[in-house]
Amino acid sequence: MIERISILGTGLLGASAGLALRAAGFRGSITGWSRTSEQAHTALRMGAIDSVANDPIAAARESELVFLSMPIFATLDFMAQLSGALTPDHLVTDVGSTKRLIAESAAQLYNKPNCAAFLPGHPMAGKERGGASLADANLFRGAVWLFTDDLAARRSPRAAELVQSWRQSVAAMGSRILDLDPLRHDELVAWVSHLPQFVATALSALLEEEVGDAPELKDVGGRALREMTRLGASPYSMWRDIAHTNTEAVERALQALEQRLAYLRENLRTPGLRSEFDQANRFRRE
Amino acid sequence: MIERISILGTGLLGASAGLALRAAGFRGSITGWSRTSEQAHTALRMGAIDSVANDPIAAARESELVFLSMPIFATLDFMAQLSGALTPDHLVTDVGSTKRLIAESAAQLYNKPNCAAFLPGHPMAGKERGGASLADANLFRGAVWLFTDDLAARRSPRAAELVQSWRQSVAAMGSRILDLDPLRHDELVAWVSHLPQFVATALSALLEEEVGDAPELKDVGGRALREMTRLGASPYSMWRDIAHTNTEAVERALQALEQRLAYLRENLRTPGLRSEFDQANRFRRE
Repeated sequence: MIERISILGTGLLGASAGLALRAAGFRGSITGWSRTSEQAHTALRMGAIDSVANDPIAAARESELVFLSMPIFATLDFMAQLSGALTPDHLVTDVGSTKRLIAESAAQLYNKPNCAAFLPGHPMAGKERGGASLADANLFRGAVWLFTDDLAARRSPRAAELVQSWRQSVAAMGSRILDLDPLRHDELVAWVSHLPQFVATALSALLEEEVGDAPELKDVGGRALREMTRLGASPYSMWRDIAHTNTEAVERALQALEQRLAYLRENLRTPGLRSEFDQANRFRRE
Repeated sequence: MIERISILGTGLLGASAGLALRAAGFRGSITGWSRTSEQAHTALRMGAIDSVANDPIAAARESELVFLSMPIFATLDFMAQLSGALTPDHLVTDVGSTKRLIAESAAQLYNKPNCAAFLPGHPMAGKERGGASLADANLFRGAVWLFTDDLAARRSPRAAELVQSWRQSVAAMGSRILDLDPLRHDELVAWVSHLPQFVATALSALLEEEVGDAPELKDVGGRALREMTRLGASPYSMWRDIAHTNTEAVERALQALEQRLAYLRENLRTPGLRSEFDQANRFRRE
């Protein structure tokens, strides 16, 4: 069983994982590090971690499970830095929103003789705003937690044990595990996660231009408008990495939606509108 | 003060208005009629109305305030039928989602000597599914209730009294009243209400095609996907009338969003993406 965890990146996901592990009964040590030490101290005050590390590499070395919870390019940087410092007795896992580059890096730098094990992960949970202060022990409850390869588990008996233990922890946090191929993962999330985000961003940006100077008019839209633009608050810093690492799949999804909107626009007064509503109703059938 | 109300169309909005009036302390009579009598009997059982009318015209004639709560073309039909049957002591109001045609019809058939008064209204409240059984006394709480002209109130002292009384009832149901010109109304709701709906429909229809055969994959999208497609369940029957009566404004809004999505797609790896996120963040600033 895992007894020592280091959380590198104690923002919303990292701090929530710490709280969720404690809520699920984890009794080992959790040390945390953040690029901005204020985030780590917030996580400490909330009980998400029990010590703040000054040196992330040393903290990782002293733990058995390294939980990387940071944007994709930062994750790739840390994977490179950590690979030389860790041993086959370490398991590293992450939360990156695209998995092709991370799985490639894992295959190069981890999961080989004398290397640490790496298990690419992606919990489908979050909020439109980040930060440790919004952390929530129930953030992962009911969410799907994706893993995209099983190379780590096949590395050695010890690696298999650590992977098994971490999968049990994820289940204990209330998530449902789904295993997917990394390329299939990136295609799928382009449709069900990235497309909805970029649509909300484009819709919010357009509405800011059209009605942004008359705040009372936003209220007219009510709940429907609030929901359709909630993700408009999402930070560029996180989505830049996604746009850069899943560009082709996101382009295909956006272009398909542009065509669908044009079809709907050209059929506002024809029976084509009914078939679009029927098809949409099917997606939302109970 | 108004003492006798008839609700023609006891679906979600009509039955909710009955419940909300009662909750706000209205002690007069509320009679209800629905094209499908089952809806009226559901509203009766829920306490939204205290009698079911067989003849909507007779019910309207016996009331002081006629609340038309039905889709737009049905509203226009009833406006024509009722105009010959009512007197200057009646006030008719409605909930139609577009107001240009209704305001035109009101100017022709109402608000003249020897005619009933008509006050075009539009509560910005609803659910993605309709029907009396989903009625809710709090549906209008916190919502904006739009009115699009004051011709009725200027008709006669009695009309002014009825309008004043109805505006007080709307406030008592928890809504905030906003007065708008009918053309400005239709333009505004194209942006803040119709565009979000048609986007949710197109997105849901597209995703049904892409991932509809693998229900477990829908769960991967989590809360963000559920929110962005909730309106995908909205019924064609209601939105057909909106698409037919606000076509040009909706076309403009859809085309603007198509262009915005194309711009975003072409700038996934340029600084243009940051400015789109910044602009979207501004729309959602607190």
